[in-house]
Amino acid sequence: MGKGAETREAILERAVELASEVGLGGLTIGRLASALDLSKSGLFAHFASKEGLQIATLERAAERFVEVVIRPALQAPRGEPRLRALFDRWQRWPLEVPQPGGCLFVQATVELDDKPGPARDRLVALQRGWLDSLATAVKGAITEGHFRRDVDPEQIAFELHGIMLSTHHAVRLLRDPRATARARRAVDRLLVSCRAAV
Amino acid sequence: MGKGAETREAILERAVELASEVGLGGLTIGRLASALDLSKSGLFAHFASKEGLQIATLERAAERFVEVVIRPALQAPRGEPRLRALFDRWQRWPLEVPQPGGCLFVQATVELDDKPGPARDRLVALQRGWLDSLATAVKGAITEGHFRRDVDPEQIAFELHGIMLSTHHAVRLLRDPRATARARRAVDRLLVSCRAAV
Repeated sequence: MGKGAETREAILERAVELASEVGLGGLTIGRLASALDLSKSGLFAHFASKEGLQIATLERAAERFVEVVIRPALQAPRGEPRLRALFDRWQRWPLEVPQPGGCLFVQATVELDDKPGPARDRLVALQRGWLDSLATAVKGAITEGHFRRDVDPEQIAFELHGIMLSTHHAVRLLRDPRATARARRAVDRLLVSCRAAV
Repeated sequence: MGKGAETREAILERAVELASEVGLGGLTIGRLASALDLSKSGLFAHFASKEGLQIATLERAAERFVEVVIRPALQAPRGEPRLRALFDRWQRWPLEVPQPGGCLFVQATVELDDKPGPARDRLVALQRGWLDSLATAVKGAITEGHFRRDVDPEQIAFELHGIMLSTHHAVRLLRDPRATARARRAVDRLLVSCRAAV
């Protein structure tokens, strides 16, 4: 990786962190430059516009998500173990890639859901990709014979995503010490309901 | 209700609508005054500060939530029917009380979760109150013999809240036409898992 690419990655890593706190809307080139102690003109060389910076930040977060959540979970055996690994790794995601304001994708969803444009389109594609990854893991569990053949993978992805969002709310807003235990019980209930009779 | 109180309610109704789009952080007295075509000094008479306006807006949203979600659901028979009525009414909440940017409480959670202060404290109390209402409805279903005695009401409230958040995400961000059907199937699965053997 060349020096330019390295610098760009370091900038975007800081952008992910900052955007989790101030939002993508608050992530201006000026604010990021001052957080990095760089000149605005230097940053403009990497990102032509505020929107370009927002999209690059979402994409960097998605790359990191693949690195710390999806790829390691693929080491787990296909089927229910891999689906559980995805959920477990997701729980540590806002810590492994520092997001002091909580998951950037949750933040960006609230910001962008009513703002048509390229940033919203990119976020939709990334969130669909994540739900597809969950659904693919469910399909793997059906193929392995862990889950019944009539289980609807997209439905289970939708429900797992709900457990994640409720956990995020309980941890971030309510500071509920039981959040992680509740998440585990919810996942257990959901996956038990999918299991093939033995 | 006196004229002053009526005016205050009309102002806050508009504030709820506006905050769902621009966030509580974007809800300045100046911006609200211009949306209502009122003078800033007139609004200052009602709300001493931006934070006072934010808290009053959250409280007005909570009053309306009681009026359009909780109180009508109490007309349903106690037990599982009342719990389902709460969920069904919640689905229409961002439409019945206009929130063009989606549920104000979802918006406010992302904004305030990392901002200590009176507005965050109020939001936490309101969100705990909503989860308590769900848990109380679950307790009612246990008392009525619809659900087993070993069902954990707070766990079910946590899981129902997750289904709501996933539905909100699927409707608002993904524009998924199957969101409502997915929500119903998720609620069915959850409540069936609670049912007493017959």
